[in-house]
Amino acid sequence: MHVLIIGAAGMIGRKLTTRLVADRGLGGQEITALTLVDVIAPQAPAGFSGRVATEALDLSAPGAAARSIAGRPDMIFHLAAIVSGEAEADFEKGYRINLDGTRALFEAIRQEGTRQPYAPRVVFTSSIAVFGAPFPEAIGDEFFCTPLTSYGTQKAIDELLLADYSRRGFFDGIGIRLPTICIRPGAPNKAASGFFSNILREPLSGQEAVLPVGEDVRHWHASPRAAVGFLLHAATLDTKPLGARRNLTMPGLSATVGEQIAALRKVAGDKAANLIRREPDATIAAIVAGWPRNFDPRRAIALGFRAERSFEDIIRVHIEDELGGKLPV
Amino acid sequence: MHVLIIGAAGMIGRKLTTRLVADRGLGGQEITALTLVDVIAPQAPAGFSGRVATEALDLSAPGAAARSIAGRPDMIFHLAAIVSGEAEADFEKGYRINLDGTRALFEAIRQEGTRQPYAPRVVFTSSIAVFGAPFPEAIGDEFFCTPLTSYGTQKAIDELLLADYSRRGFFDGIGIRLPTICIRPGAPNKAASGFFSNILREPLSGQEAVLPVGEDVRHWHASPRAAVGFLLHAATLDTKPLGARRNLTMPGLSATVGEQIAALRKVAGDKAANLIRREPDATIAAIVAGWPRNFDPRRAIALGFRAERSFEDIIRVHIEDELGGKLPV
Repeated sequence: MHVLIIGAAGMIGRKLTTRLVADRGLGGQEITALTLVDVIAPQAPAGFSGRVATEALDLSAPGAAARSIAGRPDMIFHLAAIVSGEAEADFEKGYRINLDGTRALFEAIRQEGTRQPYAPRVVFTSSIAVFGAPFPEAIGDEFFCTPLTSYGTQKAIDELLLADYSRRGFFDGIGIRLPTICIRPGAPNKAASGFFSNILREPLSGQEAVLPVGEDVRHWHASPRAAVGFLLHAATLDTKPLGARRNLTMPGLSATVGEQIAALRKVAGDKAANLIRREPDATIAAIVAGWPRNFDPRRAIALGFRAERSFEDIIRVHIEDELGGKLPV
Repeated sequence: MHVLIIGAAGMIGRKLTTRLVADRGLGGQEITALTLVDVIAPQAPAGFSGRVATEALDLSAPGAAARSIAGRPDMIFHLAAIVSGEAEADFEKGYRINLDGTRALFEAIRQEGTRQPYAPRVVFTSSIAVFGAPFPEAIGDEFFCTPLTSYGTQKAIDELLLADYSRRGFFDGIGIRLPTICIRPGAPNKAASGFFSNILREPLSGQEAVLPVGEDVRHWHASPRAAVGFLLHAATLDTKPLGARRNLTMPGLSATVGEQIAALRKVAGDKAANLIRREPDATIAAIVAGWPRNFDPRRAIALGFRAERSFEDIIRVHIEDELGGKLPV
């Protein structure tokens, strides 16, 4: 099996690559070739015995999408996107990368199929940003997409294209709407959502973190490990039961900031929890107020997708996967 | 006020033009200029005292969209599209006209605004084809878009673009999802939906018509006059209450074929109703089975959009507007 990962240099892309190499296969099939693509050339993974190609490609550049699938991969993970903040700040770049780039990939697959039959599985990472407030108490699987950002608009359009190209038989697509990934490894960043991870990751390493919103703020979370699990499950499940409804809200954990802090206190003690400094920020509070808080993702659960059930679990995943299994003393 | 109609040569475009010329204005403002665009040059309307320009333009051709708005119209009606059947038969043409053409228009408006502030009202005709079965008993305003045709996909994408461009302030857009238009004037056509009009229009003129489905088939209808009314209301209403949710399912009348025939019998007698010949067609029945049957369009009704309340009314509109107010003896 030949696997292509587009967006392989990103956080999820790297974790997915590591997992595929560790598993040596996908859905019972051996992975014999791995193509890793991103706007900067991804690192080739250590310990993989098959063929590896890495390439720096911008899907929206002429010919790039065709080039990315020239090896006719059987499985395509399309994770590449510019993030919400950048897509909002740079309108043209957002549409170029997040819409035109994705459409170019889908078109390249279709065109390849006109030359010789070709219909790979395509797993596309969408986002809960396809939804925009006001929301019901829990957003159901049939709730409409009215994004409040250009990023969410671009993802919602990609979902529609994916469903139509799949219906036409050009590929076998599935779109998965990821929750906010928590705990994101790495340094604190300036994304409006950054604090959800910062207030756990930093104290777990003995560092201070800033909380810009109230403890009653509720949001929808899953760990990086759960996200990789979603991707693998989406890659291997039977897509027939999806019918024409190819885009799924992934399961997650709805939790308040207060519940996050209580879990931190339980796992790492008062000393860690006391490293959170409250610095209310009205701008961030206003942005976050428009975000989804809770979902009722029955279809994905019925199809076997699984996320964490408690924030202690989310914290333990971080300790195991990022901190070598132990808290710093 | 300068009004641009794109798709002015089509049935609704011509009726809208006629109505605007008869009204001499829109929302209390005089119409001083009228630009009529379509893939074939529309006819200039008789009896209009303002400036008229007509032009044959394909929005998806390079430069055409910019050209269409070069006169900086205050009000843009974008009705142009290739129909469902053609968009399904010709994948590339469908996306080129229905997606790229519309996006080119939106982009041309945005670009014009970068030169000199410009934010016209844009009224876009979407379709109930943005919805795909299975459906609830009546489709509510928050039901998701999972189209089962490329045409419906293209319209759903256009809706998302319209909402994002409006949110950004590039224009003041409103998308209206038209019901199936009944009674369509003109000759019977081969559209799968054609029979809904044929079985009324033909008998009203003393001609036979073919009914390919059972009398229990339920569908969602509005007259051409109601459709023009939707367009005028969308052009003049206050868009502030729409918020970011700029696309609305229009009101209509949910009726079975049996109810259509009963109304025909009531208005035009047994002789007319007996001109309907039953010739079941499994292919058409299967297509129609995937179509929406009923809606609960509360938002549009609250905003003042109005459709017919009975099929007798729909038939009377046809007699008044197409048959000079009388049935042929």
